Amino acid sequence: MVRVSLSDWLTVSVAGQDEPVSRIVRDFVAAEGGVGEAAVVGLTHRLPARTAALANGTIGHALDYDDTHFAYLGHPSVAVFPAAFAIAQKTGASGETFLGAALIGAEIATRIGSWLGRRHHLVGFHSTATAGAFGAAMASARLLGLDEEEAGYALGLAATRASGLRAQFGTMGKPFHAGMAASSGVEAALLAQRGFISRPDALESSQGFAVTHGAEMQDPTEVLNGLGQSWLFEGVLHKFHACCHGAHASLEALTEVRDGVGVKPDDVASVSISVPPRYLNVCNILEPKTGLEAKFSFRLCAAMVLAGRDTAALTTFCDATCHDPEIVALRDRVTVTGDEGLAETEAVVRVTCSDGRTFDVNHDIGREVSRATRERKIKAKCQALLGQDQAAELWKAVEAAEPAGLEEWIQNHVLHQASARGENHKNLI
Amino acid sequence: MVRVSLSDWLTVSVAGQDEPVSRIVRDFVAAEGGVGEAAVVGLTHRLPARTAALANGTIGHALDYDDTHFAYLGHPSVAVFPAAFAIAQKTGASGETFLGAALIGAEIATRIGSWLGRRHHLVGFHSTATAGAFGAAMASARLLGLDEEEAGYALGLAATRASGLRAQFGTMGKPFHAGMAASSGVEAALLAQRGFISRPDALESSQGFAVTHGAEMQDPTEVLNGLGQSWLFEGVLHKFHACCHGAHASLEALTEVRDGVGVKPDDVASVSISVPPRYLNVCNILEPKTGLEAKFSFRLCAAMVLAGRDTAALTTFCDATCHDPEIVALRDRVTVTGDEGLAETEAVVRVTCSDGRTFDVNHDIGREVSRATRERKIKAKCQALLGQDQAAELWKAVEAAEPAGLEEWIQNHVLHQASARGENHKNLI
Repeated sequence: MVRVSLSDWLTVSVAGQDEPVSRIVRDFVAAEGGVGEAAVVGLTHRLPARTAALANGTIGHALDYDDTHFAYLGHPSVAVFPAAFAIAQKTGASGETFLGAALIGAEIATRIGSWLGRRHHLVGFHSTATAGAFGAAMASARLLGLDEEEAGYALGLAATRASGLRAQFGTMGKPFHAGMAASSGVEAALLAQRGFISRPDALESSQGFAVTHGAEMQDPTEVLNGLGQSWLFEGVLHKFHACCHGAHASLEALTEVRDGVGVKPDDVASVSISVPPRYLNVCNILEPKTGLEAKFSFRLCAAMVLAGRDTAALTTFCDATCHDPEIVALRDRVTVTGDEGLAETEAVVRVTCSDGRTFDVNHDIGREVSRATRERKIKAKCQALLGQDQAAELWKAVEAAEPAGLEEWIQNHVLHQASARGENHKNLI
Repeated sequence: MVRVSLSDWLTVSVAGQDEPVSRIVRDFVAAEGGVGEAAVVGLTHRLPARTAALANGTIGHALDYDDTHFAYLGHPSVAVFPAAFAIAQKTGASGETFLGAALIGAEIATRIGSWLGRRHHLVGFHSTATAGAFGAAMASARLLGLDEEEAGYALGLAATRASGLRAQFGTMGKPFHAGMAASSGVEAALLAQRGFISRPDALESSQGFAVTHGAEMQDPTEVLNGLGQSWLFEGVLHKFHACCHGAHASLEALTEVRDGVGVKPDDVASVSISVPPRYLNVCNILEPKTGLEAKFSFRLCAAMVLAGRDTAALTTFCDATCHDPEIVALRDRVTVTGDEGLAETEAVVRVTCSDGRTFDVNHDIGREVSRATRERKIKAKCQALLGQDQAAELWKAVEAAEPAGLEEWIQNHVLHQASARGENHKNLI
């Protein structure tokens, strides 16, 4: 699973590297400069590990198209992988060592996030930012070979540095949170390596991070139960549609009707979608007019799937799609209702055809899918975002997982883009 | 007052530049390198403004000998001045512009800290770290000439980045908090300058910083009342003794008996000290054996003052002082009791002489002192810590307040120390 997430993280990072927040944070760290330790998505030269992690965390979350873990309501990979990648490059780690550290960091972020619980989220904290910093610190600590005492100091530093408010959702603050977490984790581990002494139990102590940040504070040993044997991170979900996560279950159900049964757009008389009621306030714009609004419209997204449009591609979500007669006609045959009985990751669709056939499909995106299916979908997503060649190159680099190979893939993309724009590569280096 | 605090900040920074936490954080940022924008205490070359602020904030608080504001239970200058100094250097600001921004930043840190209130502190947050970040952001915003909208985004970013737990007290985490605040403020302002959009009301909004961090949440307009007319920062207190702040009022009272009345060590038959009872658990080690323990001993500190030792100097607090027969004999004539009726900043001493004379002095370090008295004491402190020449040079540089002059003073100290150790200056540059 860690290779699948690694591939997905790099895909959405490169796809999102020109978003405004990506440019701002990358330009900021590039202007600071510093020793070349780690690659930054969108640059052809390296920067210090800590600032590379700040930029790469932000860039990876810019599209909000990266993986999610519902157990802690956060995005594990985008907070942890930029830290692990930066320290792996700085230390010259092998692919296996890098992957192992990234996995352990993601697992710790997931476990601490789940332990902080839903209450932490409801109080107003962004778990990606907070739990993510602990995972980033532990991935970095492992790559640096910190001993138990030093790792404890890194964890204590993460506890006093971790921050991030949900109040920033809808602003550039949200993707920046992932960068903060990654960067704080790198900083904590590097300082601990230099002999920095903090309070190692500052996560769980009285007046520690958990109690001061609205954590549910169940039994703290829960975080550690089965660590190394069972992997909560395995429950990570990937996004296969470039729209609000709330719509994904319904789009998967409609994909089954389209591909499994072979229903064509002209066959469709009506579609009814049932979703958890909370999503009706989130992604139910009835007649979207812009690409951004389209991402928050059950009806339009459903129409796109039934018409065979590639909902994994960012470019599908454009103003033109909102006004495409075929899509609009399908959209107007869709109704959406709330159903209290559905899980957060679940949707039920009923497609009624003109010839009287009716298809009911229930899909839960939290349901386990085979490794092969997940891999296929991840590759298709990369292809939709970056094209066939780059997707193939990425998978080769991810199989080996050597940091140098991944860095080369990132930098090739920058050079490729520059070349497509007719720029002189030398100016970039 | 801002010049007095500037002088004090630079004094304790240079005096604390070789503390373990100072070395660790300075070595860390020096290893990252980067463009030369701002001076770092203890280095002869510049680093990026953000990392310079991280190091200088930490170094300035390493001795815990910097100024304090009881209204918000925090240290305003050490969180704000390193940010203002770094951005002033980066932007080439004049002395007046730098001072104005530092004052405004310190005022905002003080006001926001007071507004977050004692509850924020009691819940477990370190106001220096949290309120300090807002002050640092606003000082930086002013020096960068941000407009109202951009300054709002910087404030919003500070709200999602500010952190720091009291659980770190007694570890290197505490001084590092000041560096975090300074660095986060610089980062927030520089990103806002580049067009970063955050939620500008993330301090006071529902699920914003204040409500999620245990603030007392009185009327939010309170923060702004009289801003620019009345200065809460004027209530800042400076430390004139290199020991626990809890002992300071009693030492000031004893200084009055010694210098005002002319009581000599041999005259003293007994001394009784009354203090707020909470300090009896903080700084009442009866027979300290080490320099560190001496800092937390009412009795030994009182004996030092009566014997005319310089309690402003760090070197006075050493193991030898704890075993000095004259000091130990005086120490054994001192008794300490708690008195619920005293303010946190107050102490009452009674000195009884062998000839029957009795002197009662009540001292409140929160009581206003004249500007001239404060300046005299600040200069004496600098002299005790760094010697007469450096104190005179510092005051000259502070009078002008030109960032270049202050930087030169800081760097001269590094070269002076290296020269005293017989090192070749060139290796340092």
